[in-house]
Amino acid sequence: MILSKVSAERLSRLQEQMARAGLVLSGAEVVDVVAIAPTANMRYLLGFAPLADERPCVLLVSRDNTRLVVPELNADQVEAHTSMTPIRWPDAAGPHRAFTDALSVLGIKGLVGTPSPIVLAADDAMRADALLLLQEIIGPRKTMAAGELMAALRMRKSEAELEVMARAAAVADAALMAGADVCRPGVTEREVAEKIASSFRSQGADQVDFTIVGSGPNGAFPHHEFSDRRLEVGDMVIIDIGATLDGYHSDVTRVVHLGEPSAEERAVFEVVLEANRRGREAAVAGARARDVDRAARKVVVEAGYGPQFIHRTGHGMGLEVHEPPWITSESDTVLEPGMVFSVEPGIYLPDKFGVRIEDIVVVTAGESRCLTGLDRRMIIR
Amino acid sequence: MILSKVSAERLSRLQEQMARAGLVLSGAEVVDVVAIAPTANMRYLLGFAPLADERPCVLLVSRDNTRLVVPELNADQVEAHTSMTPIRWPDAAGPHRAFTDALSVLGIKGLVGTPSPIVLAADDAMRADALLLLQEIIGPRKTMAAGELMAALRMRKSEAELEVMARAAAVADAALMAGADVCRPGVTEREVAEKIASSFRSQGADQVDFTIVGSGPNGAFPHHEFSDRRLEVGDMVIIDIGATLDGYHSDVTRVVHLGEPSAEERAVFEVVLEANRRGREAAVAGARARDVDRAARKVVVEAGYGPQFIHRTGHGMGLEVHEPPWITSESDTVLEPGMVFSVEPGIYLPDKFGVRIEDIVVVTAGESRCLTGLDRRMIIR
Repeated sequence: MILSKVSAERLSRLQEQMARAGLVLSGAEVVDVVAIAPTANMRYLLGFAPLADERPCVLLVSRDNTRLVVPELNADQVEAHTSMTPIRWPDAAGPHRAFTDALSVLGIKGLVGTPSPIVLAADDAMRADALLLLQEIIGPRKTMAAGELMAALRMRKSEAELEVMARAAAVADAALMAGADVCRPGVTEREVAEKIASSFRSQGADQVDFTIVGSGPNGAFPHHEFSDRRLEVGDMVIIDIGATLDGYHSDVTRVVHLGEPSAEERAVFEVVLEANRRGREAAVAGARARDVDRAARKVVVEAGYGPQFIHRTGHGMGLEVHEPPWITSESDTVLEPGMVFSVEPGIYLPDKFGVRIEDIVVVTAGESRCLTGLDRRMIIR
Repeated sequence: MILSKVSAERLSRLQEQMARAGLVLSGAEVVDVVAIAPTANMRYLLGFAPLADERPCVLLVSRDNTRLVVPELNADQVEAHTSMTPIRWPDAAGPHRAFTDALSVLGIKGLVGTPSPIVLAADDAMRADALLLLQEIIGPRKTMAAGELMAALRMRKSEAELEVMARAAAVADAALMAGADVCRPGVTEREVAEKIASSFRSQGADQVDFTIVGSGPNGAFPHHEFSDRRLEVGDMVIIDIGATLDGYHSDVTRVVHLGEPSAEERAVFEVVLEANRRGREAAVAGARARDVDRAARKVVVEAGYGPQFIHRTGHGMGLEVHEPPWITSESDTVLEPGMVFSVEPGIYLPDKFGVRIEDIVVVTAGESRCLTGLDRRMIIR
């Protein structure tokens, strides 16, 4: 099976990283056990993750072995999708015994008074109740987030991954234009969001992760989703959407304006457009992630809108819509070919409007490549 | 504001619970600080939670004070929706300083060598990276899951909550029948799922949490979602769906059969139907949650299908689709009027088919009331 071959190779790369984690994770010893929840990390390592609910479901990886502990009701499904035979725990008994057995097989047990306690790296998005269960069973230990360890494996995308991501980006581009097409006075943000969702479905996209349709003052909230507010003449409308295609994500933002924009709206838009361009231009191999943020931010600051650019310039994406590398003003991650992230500067004027322009870029040996294919101009309707 | 009055009352009930947590949580001391993530618990306490992503966003509640720490880009939105002034942290600086300040204002700081370390109760669904950040800042502490503490507040629904949940149940009933209506040979599970999603949207439901359309052998995986498998004559099809309406959830399962069912299919169906009835009948005030599970399970076991009933009989629901009380064979939760949960026995025959029949019941002073309004018979098409 191709799938299990990929999994075996990825698990073995993870185990190599664990042994040299001291080099990767600031101040960390070698990692004894990595605990992965049913997140993008499990999908990356096993090719499958069951529906996540409150029942603890964890892939435990020691430096030379692995055990997958799953709720009984997901076990047959997990077995059908992966090459692993999971350790099952039934609802009646609860998970304690199964996790104790699995950790014992892997030789993971903290000893009171030992000079070097167990080092546990937990999936960043694992539920707290699952983590607390592992901490209790392991006993004395040092726990860290597994984010950097997994990022080292996942940040540089393969050609096959980039091909899927280009398709996911094209799907989002088409959905964004479908949404922009229905923007007119009297239409609600929800109706625009539904048009976008229907475009995703008709293109075979698996899931709409989030849909932001922020009109007028709602556009000033970067994480506004959508409401029943009706669009009005004079509104600036931020549309920020993404889809999942074959497990990979896309993320794009464009701005629609109903009627003639004001001088202030035009001015703010031009600043963001230039910041987007400078950010993309700075996304070259060998630069630091912070160079991209600073290049985009400099344009906004010099135009006097620094305090209104209230977020980082971008985030990596892949199996997750937000993943490393983080494009912040402090990040010293060195950009390498195959890294994929958003460049999305924004300016938010409370009670008035917001502008954000977001593209997906891929770092290459030369200039960055843009997976987003849409024109960046304001869409006036 | 009504909203902030409700929030103030709920926060104060939480603080009362913290002081007497020793009575509620087995073996726990008084709780010093509760940390709530942007989950249903935050929606319950504040009436709002921002879009959750990897940025730590936490409501910290000490026994006499509260602080809300949020990422800068969500802060204005949080302030607009709640009566709180959050402590903001910008992407550039990261969250460490803001959480240190908030915990310091609340007087929460573990001291090395102190006889009674800080007791932290963390939202069950909080991300591990946020919990690890809190643990690091607090220093020596005992961490527990906040689940029981929050359940004590949320399990008994008010009349207003029950009214919303009845409407959410009716929406799911209608969507289920819309899905059943399109079941015919050649149609894919995905197409059935899309019909259901479109029914939810047209009824104004905010979100489809999950959609299970398990046809033929896929029905034997309780957490199968849907695939591109085409329905065939002779298929048993499990449809298990829920919607969110005004923040509250519903959950219902019925079985469709394409063509004449076999003798085995009829027999298994009758066992599950009887188990569902016995479970609902056992859901009376004063009984234990395990009595409901055992009443349903007894029917299945006596028919010889005990090993094929691989999950608990049900789960509470409300602001979450799965929440306490848990209807398991071991749960000693005493049922009280206002508790709402599913009764959903199932039998799963690998490689063949599965049957599950799920209703939402409300415990009252007398017989349980059923929010699900659908006939329970097999839908033959």
